[in-house]
Amino acid sequence: MSGTTLLIHDLEAAVSPKGSGPLRGRDLGELEVCSPASIAVSGDRIAAVGPPGEVLRDHPPGPGCETVDGRGKAALPGLVDCHTHAAFLGDRADEFELRCRGAGYEEIHASGGGILSTVRATRAGSEEELRAATERHLDWLLRHGTTTAEVKSGYGLDREAELRLLRAIRAAGDAHPVDVRPTFLGAHTVPPEFSGAAEYVEFVVAEVLPEAAPLAEAADVFVERGSFEVPEARRYLEACAGYGLALRLHADQFSERGAVPLAVELGARSADHLESTGGEGVRALGQSATAAVLLPACALFLGLPDPPARALLEAGAIVALATDFNPGSSFCSSLPVVLNLACTRLGLSPAEALCAATANAAYVLGLEGEVGRLSAGYRADILLLDAPDWRYIAYHLGGDHLAAVVKSGGLLPPG
Amino acid sequence: MSGTTLLIHDLEAAVSPKGSGPLRGRDLGELEVCSPASIAVSGDRIAAVGPPGEVLRDHPPGPGCETVDGRGKAALPGLVDCHTHAAFLGDRADEFELRCRGAGYEEIHASGGGILSTVRATRAGSEEELRAATERHLDWLLRHGTTTAEVKSGYGLDREAELRLLRAIRAAGDAHPVDVRPTFLGAHTVPPEFSGAAEYVEFVVAEVLPEAAPLAEAADVFVERGSFEVPEARRYLEACAGYGLALRLHADQFSERGAVPLAVELGARSADHLESTGGEGVRALGQSATAAVLLPACALFLGLPDPPARALLEAGAIVALATDFNPGSSFCSSLPVVLNLACTRLGLSPAEALCAATANAAYVLGLEGEVGRLSAGYRADILLLDAPDWRYIAYHLGGDHLAAVVKSGGLLPPG
Ligand SMILES: [Zn+2]
Ligand SMILES: [Zn+2]
Repeated sequence: MSGTTLLIHDLEAAVSPKGSGPLRGRDLGELEVCSPASIAVSGDRIAAVGPPGEVLRDHPPGPGCETVDGRGKAALPGLVDCHTHAAFLGDRADEFELRCRGAGYEEIHASGGGILSTVRATRAGSEEELRAATERHLDWLLRHGTTTAEVKSGYGLDREAELRLLRAIRAAGDAHPVDVRPTFLGAHTVPPEFSGAAEYVEFVVAEVLPEAAPLAEAADVFVERGSFEVPEARRYLEACAGYGLALRLHADQFSERGAVPLAVELGARSADHLESTGGEGVRALGQSATAAVLLPACALFLGLPDPPARALLEAGAIVALATDFNPGSSFCSSLPVVLNLACTRLGLSPAEALCAATANAAYVLGLEGEVGRLSAGYRADILLLDAPDWRYIAYHLGGDHLAAVVKSGGLLPPG
Repeated sequence: MSGTTLLIHDLEAAVSPKGSGPLRGRDLGELEVCSPASIAVSGDRIAAVGPPGEVLRDHPPGPGCETVDGRGKAALPGLVDCHTHAAFLGDRADEFELRCRGAGYEEIHASGGGILSTVRATRAGSEEELRAATERHLDWLLRHGTTTAEVKSGYGLDREAELRLLRAIRAAGDAHPVDVRPTFLGAHTVPPEFSGAAEYVEFVVAEVLPEAAPLAEAADVFVERGSFEVPEARRYLEACAGYGLALRLHADQFSERGAVPLAVELGARSADHLESTGGEGVRALGQSATAAVLLPACALFLGLPDPPARALLEAGAIVALATDFNPGSSFCSSLPVVLNLACTRLGLSPAEALCAATANAAYVLGLEGEVGRLSAGYRADILLLDAPDWRYIAYHLGGDHLAAVVKSGGLLPPG
């Protein structure tokens, strides 16, 4: 401990998810609200959150300690985006326009558009170009308060391009204030060089995974018709688990085909999407340690039905929220917008939405106890909101109330 | 003419709605795209938009002319928000939370929440407080590219409070870069002092309108069960027209009850909302000069069905878009977010959405020929987008690509 290095004093309130582990079911919106509050930071850690007098007494600012005037502001934990595809080149503005006019996402995918058009653009890029693009996208995430983000590969889909992507993701994370958790999405879709999903998965497992695994923290697969069915997903995930990777699944986005039971059986960290999940899947997630990651911006972009958020909470599931940021099905890099969509479309309260994008999202990334709360010992990732009520982060759609961001104990320059 | 006072040179593209009047039906997305382009500004007017060489030759920058490097950027007309309730005090974060948890908007309204809670907060404010709040809200609009905004009264609902609101709206407009068009929404809802809508309308017409009319440019009424039915709306609007005010109607938000035929009959500038409008109303608007103002952020906030946007376009209607910015049913001050919602929820293309929030919104405010286009003679209200494609303004939900705003010929400081 190096004493207090940063003191945020006299905040209107400090607001944080309660407790320590993930918040399950109806406990999702349980908050610890300290009002008024000060926060003492020591190095890259939160030393104390509490009443201003108490914090000042127990954690006095020493020489060189930076102080931030918190009057009129609310502090929240830095947001955690636990599902992004932020490593890509090119965009899909043309496809966005086609979809507005009524073309279906699966139809676009089948005609070589969709994911495969981003694969073409991404394969053509150098590692340096990929790193620069990923950093630019991390800037976009940070601008709205995301301080930790998962970034998936999956637009390479051959040996060299997937490894290049993972190296670029790591390099971007090293260079950027946002903490990055790289996920190997080797099984995003079947690239055109392969005739079938099973054949492609064997290739990935034999030729890509051994070198990809040390570059990633988790593995992910897209279970869907036209992509990977359960047998191939199982083969891929079991191989990835063998290399020590945590498991994630894109599950039930367009159709329910066994991804949720597979996720629960394999002890995956999360099943993501769930727009088509029925009662049985909801019950299974309600009793498991596998989190349900909901992506309402993607449902908005694709005109999909919304996932059964309230049913998942009633069943006791660990619900998290994320942007699904990608150039096709969810070109949204703002978690606050996603919080609003969770409130307006999924029936979450602002408190539930906040916890889903902080404490529970941290759990999905294996970072519980590390980020996602304003609590002593946690990493000092702190948002200062300039708003009369912390709920503005969800309530004011497209609002900009972020007055400052503290990342790992350091006040970031306004950007 | 004072010669070229501002030259924006070597833009990737300058993008503007085609033609001059409002864009009707399927013509909505007709754009004039000049690429590459420069824009010469003289005083507060656009002098020329065209190929860089041509503009430089015909409109050379004189001494003191400011120049802006447009390389890599796209220019769009400043956005026009033709339906806002931006003059209010307080917020409704509590109500937002209640609604997330399932309470109905009409139910909240009936129990004294909703509009009436904002009326209480707004009545308690001084003119100076109202002006300051309105200016803060105009800052929020401008931050996302709105350079002209309608602002309605309607949270006063007594003589003094409505007049105070209108004076505050005018004062805010005078002091703020955003051009403000004040609308007298004397018939927003029936305040608790009155037992019935008819009685309240007689009061408004006799006691408020004579002094309100010179402060406003248009008049508006909320036609809905529990608010004003067609006979009261007719009485109010005809009286307002007698004072020279243009007419607007909140029509068919929760139920269809004759507001659209009334709007068309009275030659109103617009019928707004239209979430419940059926085939006959669509056909009537398709053949009239009354614009259909769609408010998809409000439908999102309230979980309403979306208005029949494509049917209105097929029928030939003049479709405009707006935020409906207000603290209850649409706490969204970002027109770019609304453009995205128009694409993802209403089936508009990015080009259609852009024209609906520029040229057609200008028509709704009686400002056609004045704002909403990048064309010689128009007011020099210009957005510079730092994005690879101008469509990012609709495509990137919550994105921030606004590099600069020119208002009435002056480059605004970054905000
Ligand atoms: Zn995804
Ligand atoms: Zn309205």
